[in-house]
Amino acid sequence: MTNKETFLGEAARLLGPKGFETDPAEFAPWLTDWRGRFTGRALALASPQNTREVAELVRLCARHGVSIVPQGGNSGMVGGATPDSSGNALLLSLRRMKAVRDLDVTNRKVTCEAGLVLHNLHELAAGQGLRFPLTLGGKGSATVGGLISTNAGGSQVLRHGSMRALVLGLEAVLADGSVFSMLTPLKKDNRGFDLKQLLIGSEGTLGIVTAATLKLSPAIADRKVIWVGLPSLKAARTLLLHCQDHAGPQLEGFEVIPQHCLDSVLQYLPDARAPLVEAHAWHALIEVIADAGQATALDALCEGMMTAAFEGGLVEDAAISASEAQAEAMWLLRESIAPAERAKGTAVQHDISVAVEKMPEFVEAIIPAIEAAWSGSRAVAFGHLGDGNVHFHVLAPVGVDEAAWHAGDGKAISSQVYDLVVAWGGSISAEHGIGQLKRDELRRLGDPVALAMMARVKQALDPAGLLNPGKLT
Amino acid sequence: MTNKETFLGEAARLLGPKGFETDPAEFAPWLTDWRGRFTGRALALASPQNTREVAELVRLCARHGVSIVPQGGNSGMVGGATPDSSGNALLLSLRRMKAVRDLDVTNRKVTCEAGLVLHNLHELAAGQGLRFPLTLGGKGSATVGGLISTNAGGSQVLRHGSMRALVLGLEAVLADGSVFSMLTPLKKDNRGFDLKQLLIGSEGTLGIVTAATLKLSPAIADRKVIWVGLPSLKAARTLLLHCQDHAGPQLEGFEVIPQHCLDSVLQYLPDARAPLVEAHAWHALIEVIADAGQATALDALCEGMMTAAFEGGLVEDAAISASEAQAEAMWLLRESIAPAERAKGTAVQHDISVAVEKMPEFVEAIIPAIEAAWSGSRAVAFGHLGDGNVHFHVLAPVGVDEAAWHAGDGKAISSQVYDLVVAWGGSISAEHGIGQLKRDELRRLGDPVALAMMARVKQALDPAGLLNPGKLT
Repeated sequence: MTNKETFLGEAARLLGPKGFETDPAEFAPWLTDWRGRFTGRALALASPQNTREVAELVRLCARHGVSIVPQGGNSGMVGGATPDSSGNALLLSLRRMKAVRDLDVTNRKVTCEAGLVLHNLHELAAGQGLRFPLTLGGKGSATVGGLISTNAGGSQVLRHGSMRALVLGLEAVLADGSVFSMLTPLKKDNRGFDLKQLLIGSEGTLGIVTAATLKLSPAIADRKVIWVGLPSLKAARTLLLHCQDHAGPQLEGFEVIPQHCLDSVLQYLPDARAPLVEAHAWHALIEVIADAGQATALDALCEGMMTAAFEGGLVEDAAISASEAQAEAMWLLRESIAPAERAKGTAVQHDISVAVEKMPEFVEAIIPAIEAAWSGSRAVAFGHLGDGNVHFHVLAPVGVDEAAWHAGDGKAISSQVYDLVVAWGGSISAEHGIGQLKRDELRRLGDPVALAMMARVKQALDPAGLLNPGKLT
Repeated sequence: MTNKETFLGEAARLLGPKGFETDPAEFAPWLTDWRGRFTGRALALASPQNTREVAELVRLCARHGVSIVPQGGNSGMVGGATPDSSGNALLLSLRRMKAVRDLDVTNRKVTCEAGLVLHNLHELAAGQGLRFPLTLGGKGSATVGGLISTNAGGSQVLRHGSMRALVLGLEAVLADGSVFSMLTPLKKDNRGFDLKQLLIGSEGTLGIVTAATLKLSPAIADRKVIWVGLPSLKAARTLLLHCQDHAGPQLEGFEVIPQHCLDSVLQYLPDARAPLVEAHAWHALIEVIADAGQATALDALCEGMMTAAFEGGLVEDAAISASEAQAEAMWLLRESIAPAERAKGTAVQHDISVAVEKMPEFVEAIIPAIEAAWSGSRAVAFGHLGDGNVHFHVLAPVGVDEAAWHAGDGKAISSQVYDLVVAWGGSISAEHGIGQLKRDELRRLGDPVALAMMARVKQALDPAGLLNPGKLT
């Protein structure tokens, strides 16, 4: 028997029929990322049912020199969970590991396995009058393990932080099959290097996340959404500081939308209405919340905050949601920007960040720079001003051949965008990660000292390079 | 010339007379840790004045195979900044590097060099109506670099987190003399491994911190300190949850003190008075604050919180500070515990943590266990209940020979304490670090997988083992 046959036989015996599939037709859906940008091949699909099986499988792979591509919900943005085309890697799905090991309502934490889907985690917490605050578009498929491996963000980062900030404890299988187990959350622990944070966001290149203890928040007792009209993004930044001072930690979200994005959304959603009568250069969506148990009069807080903002000449117009339905309608406008922009034609999208205070200047500089350099293109920026993170889309000129444009001008535009981001001291990946999509750009633009450190750490913890090859490092 | 002479000559030329001292008499104070537990020797004392000099010095050391012991304020608790007795290491003081590179009041951040003393950072922030929240006993000598290298804690961690949570950007010189420079704070950055957090808390074994960008908070507009009498530590834990729900992020501190610690303090401070009339098994010191700009009526908040606590039968008695003088008097009682306990005789002290919710049970189990095992000894626990971190002191029986007791029973008691902590899933170092003091215990009790990961990372980033040898790893 060849080495490959021996490996497949041993893996099949270890995982059983439910846990091991060698027919590519059966796992074809998991070989392409959900945006359809990357397609690969795999030796087989392994779906272990517990940490012990993952560890034994990794040891088996190590013995046979078989590389491993871990996958959660396959809803990543950068192809980080898609194998390469060699067909030599094993696709390792964590989806069968979705057990909730412990739910501690009093102390607001949950220990669950990597395959638990975010939406189910939301339901689980809500059922106990609690909340897992991180949320994003792919919540119906994104898994806890994937969210941790990519340090996922979303629209609640302003107050709650990225996934990194919500992980209290972690369990992961390392490249040698040993199990890193730090699930017990200690608020203070100074026993050396922060290995937990090293594993979070490493995109499966240093270890395979199998379980985590996550921080839960009190449920939201009440929320108000305020839609504001502003003369400029600079004014939005000033307003953000005002709101942070005024609402403190009750400020849950602060998103910015330019008028032409709002126009696109209103076209895209025929039944939707603009929250304000007039047009404004920029709009801000502000969410203010009260946690369960916190006896705070939100109306008074919002009124006071906005009155002061008007008196300070910070805003042109504002509308405060009078009902949950109105609040949801405002969020729907924000969440429809991406599909509305897609409907306008093909585009290159960028998930970028700069220092929060530099964002207004940066956006005012990059939009004309790109539109001038690429005639017929249209650039839009929108999103998480509070995090210094905007999604920057550049629409192709009307009538181009999409494939050709993406391969040519689209790629060149992205390089120019990333050059500008780096020149502004920013990041070419704010929340989506590097994966396959941005690997070359990271090598081209990353700080050589940081890249060398990463390469050394990767070499130290995965000397044979078996964990998620071709991603990130 | 010998290699050593060549090295000393080149180092002297690089740093100049102000920056290089070879006469041991001149740097003797820095060869002993402030608690006088460890004394070492050094080739020389290097005091570079900027990052470039640090980098060149490290390259010079690397060429000559000279190891380096970085030192800040020399006020660490575990001998992490004290060289060994070989006399082969270079003592590298960052104290000359105390420049404030940038103070950004609007965006509440400061970029300063490693040698800046914590007290001066407090003054600097206060001068701008801002605040750097982390504080601890050694603030008059502790430096920014040392606080970062040890991930220092203190009494404000409950709300603001350890040093780790306050570092927005970092600059450090690595073992090969390259400069890791990530001073620009990005709220979201997913470009791979979290190298910044890897360096924080690594006790100078992976790199030498030369500068940092730190997060500042709004100044405190108003504060109330509440002294509470409780029947048990379990009741204190229940009260903590009540206060967290009620005061939310305005809860600044929650410390616990047993009656006999309070008695020791009242003996030690003849002018001090007990805040409550009766004795109680346990006392809690609760601090609630309002940030500048936050329009919150603290009186109403505290009244409401404590009324509910009384009605819920959570507390036996309580006193709310009516003035800043009263608030300070209450804190003085808490801060005098350590000296008051020291005045009662020789003791072994332990900085330990377990999961917050396990702390009451743990303390109720460990005190009798230790006192029963070591007749004549007396055990006390006090401190940061909100962080699951208590300081656990075991006093020697009256009349023992101190040196002999420390070398014998004291050492054995500490090992037993650490065994119990580990059995409870806790940490043998909550906030002080490992340094020299706890290195053997970490090797004895640490998770082998985590220890192996640390050893590999250390080997990868400092293959020659030149950075702070004999500490932590």
